[in-house]
Amino acid sequence: MYNPPERMPQDIFLIGAGQTRFCEQWDMSLRDLIEASVTAAITDAKLSAIDIDMVIVANMIGDAVADQAHLGALAASLLPHRPPALRVEAACASGSVAVHTACSLLRSGDVGTVLVVGAEKMTDVPNEVVSRALMGASDAEKDAAAGLTFPGIFGLVAQRYQHDYDLTREQLSLVSAQHHQHAVTNPNAQFQKAIPAEMISESPLVADPLRLLDCSPISDGAAACILSVKHRSPFRIAASQLSTDTLSLADRPTLTSFSATKEAAQKAFREADITRDDISHIELHDCFSIAALISLEDLGFAEPGNGISFYEQPDPNLTINQSGGLKACGHPVAATGVKQLIDLRRELRASGEQFGLAHNFGGAGATCCVHLLEHAA
Amino acid sequence: MYNPPERMPQDIFLIGAGQTRFCEQWDMSLRDLIEASVTAAITDAKLSAIDIDMVIVANMIGDAVADQAHLGALAASLLPHRPPALRVEAACASGSVAVHTACSLLRSGDVGTVLVVGAEKMTDVPNEVVSRALMGASDAEKDAAAGLTFPGIFGLVAQRYQHDYDLTREQLSLVSAQHHQHAVTNPNAQFQKAIPAEMISESPLVADPLRLLDCSPISDGAAACILSVKHRSPFRIAASQLSTDTLSLADRPTLTSFSATKEAAQKAFREADITRDDISHIELHDCFSIAALISLEDLGFAEPGNGISFYEQPDPNLTINQSGGLKACGHPVAATGVKQLIDLRRELRASGEQFGLAHNFGGAGATCCVHLLEHAA
Repeated sequence: MYNPPERMPQDIFLIGAGQTRFCEQWDMSLRDLIEASVTAAITDAKLSAIDIDMVIVANMIGDAVADQAHLGALAASLLPHRPPALRVEAACASGSVAVHTACSLLRSGDVGTVLVVGAEKMTDVPNEVVSRALMGASDAEKDAAAGLTFPGIFGLVAQRYQHDYDLTREQLSLVSAQHHQHAVTNPNAQFQKAIPAEMISESPLVADPLRLLDCSPISDGAAACILSVKHRSPFRIAASQLSTDTLSLADRPTLTSFSATKEAAQKAFREADITRDDISHIELHDCFSIAALISLEDLGFAEPGNGISFYEQPDPNLTINQSGGLKACGHPVAATGVKQLIDLRRELRASGEQFGLAHNFGGAGATCCVHLLEHAA
Repeated sequence: MYNPPERMPQDIFLIGAGQTRFCEQWDMSLRDLIEASVTAAITDAKLSAIDIDMVIVANMIGDAVADQAHLGALAASLLPHRPPALRVEAACASGSVAVHTACSLLRSGDVGTVLVVGAEKMTDVPNEVVSRALMGASDAEKDAAAGLTFPGIFGLVAQRYQHDYDLTREQLSLVSAQHHQHAVTNPNAQFQKAIPAEMISESPLVADPLRLLDCSPISDGAAACILSVKHRSPFRIAASQLSTDTLSLADRPTLTSFSATKEAAQKAFREADITRDDISHIELHDCFSIAALISLEDLGFAEPGNGISFYEQPDPNLTINQSGGLKACGHPVAATGVKQLIDLRRELRASGEQFGLAHNFGGAGATCCVHLLEHAA
């Protein structure tokens, strides 16, 4: 491993944030979504737009569904001084990878304040166009060529998990039910209504054993965060870690654990020098219900096969996807990883607690970012 | 502007590089192209693969033409330790923006050695699919909606330039003719043959006044560079600068000058603390012949309207696109910005001179990176 030269650690602060509601935004284009979230973030940060030294845009499927690449320049064009800008993509982890990239750029000393905006416009095109574009997150030669879609991939994962750990259909339904319950009070959520576990168990089969209400929806939305080493706030990025696994499921030793999540979490807790007991709020990547269970285990909060315990007996000291998560809050893919930080900030403000964890992965866990947000009470 | 804290400047070295030939690579997939260039770069650097701390992949149209996003994880999967990885996109400037991002990451102290690979697979799909995907580099709501393609955009630029500066058809043809002449001796070039200026003037009209041989081709190819602050080489990144302009041509005060090129060049010469007289080799972004002339002017090597002088009377102390440039060497879009550094390294080695300049832009100059490479003779 590389041993960097000694240097003064520089604290990175989340100084402003804004988002659109995640839902079907029929009257907003990709540009409109970006502009709305950026304007809200700049207002929230009490900055002038020209205080932004750089823009990083996270987007996955703009090329395929909106004929729009080059979103760095598009977003920079919205600001009067058009700062340097680029787009980062890592499938559904694009948002958190953009945040991670911003943290490194801030530590480089090249920039003092970075705007990160994650945005996705998914509802303007037929579902098959979106499904094909999303399948770009997997291995086109190995997994897509076998006829798999993402529900298919996570259906295989869920089947294996049920086989290994005797998870029942009724247990699995508790996951989406709880996330939906949380979304009831989130005005930015796509589905602000409770759905009982029985209804989830009886929703249409999509990819056995996964049913419609095990799956996160197709959504439009954007989320923007302003990070700075120059301006301060009570919210500090205590850790930002990125890990990578094989792109194809076929190259993995197991289907029921994602090593990139494990590795990113281990590195993040080491970076922040805290333990899992210090965490009060988690926003995790429940693209499918089964992913929530596996992620809680890979993050180190539960033993393998035991993630469901958090849904059977909620821990009063640890909230999980209080926003509603991907399932109920919505999942405009590249916006999710940025929005998770906004959720954690709101949750930490409300609870007065110190630490929250954001977990965002891409594909079948081939890319994973874990961020720890610290609240100076 | 942000004033960073005092710190020891860290030199960034180009310690290894490799590429495929740019051409129609019928027997290679996007993964194959990436793997070939990465393997060559690691061999050239005399490193073990596990010395690479991070991977940045530059790619523009993999989603649209190969159904493959998430190329960071794909590239990391090719290495035994699967280092953290991400994809960067900024249209045709993706390659240089990835290099620029790598430089910032290296200065952050987070990583010691970064692999940057730019790759594009363009010849597997019909031309109209490629054209549509490339048009994503422009503003989908403002420019594409008007029916423009990129030849159309640069046709407008060329018309205005001819109107303002009385450039003749015969003069314009000197640009591609000279780039083709240079490619004759480049084994990695797509078109290794000389084409006389008369033939360029008589090639089929594409977008008046641009003819077929004014336009860079559709190409497959990959190029990889390994950059390090831990390992040294005789080749140092003396400057890496990124600038952004409005995405749409419609929002610009002029069609015949690209402000992002001007700004990036000014910042780069300031960063390296050298002058234009110190440059011996330029690799510039001649996506269309007219772009070469405008770029030489915006980079500060010629007065407005006078870029053609370098083609009418070549400067014996300054080579321009000795590789053949985008026109004759080929333009697998995201590979180009990485390949330019490889070209400069070869040119500086051969000439024994000290400085080379790489100029790579995206869209109609909405994103521009300028890199200065220094050779310790």
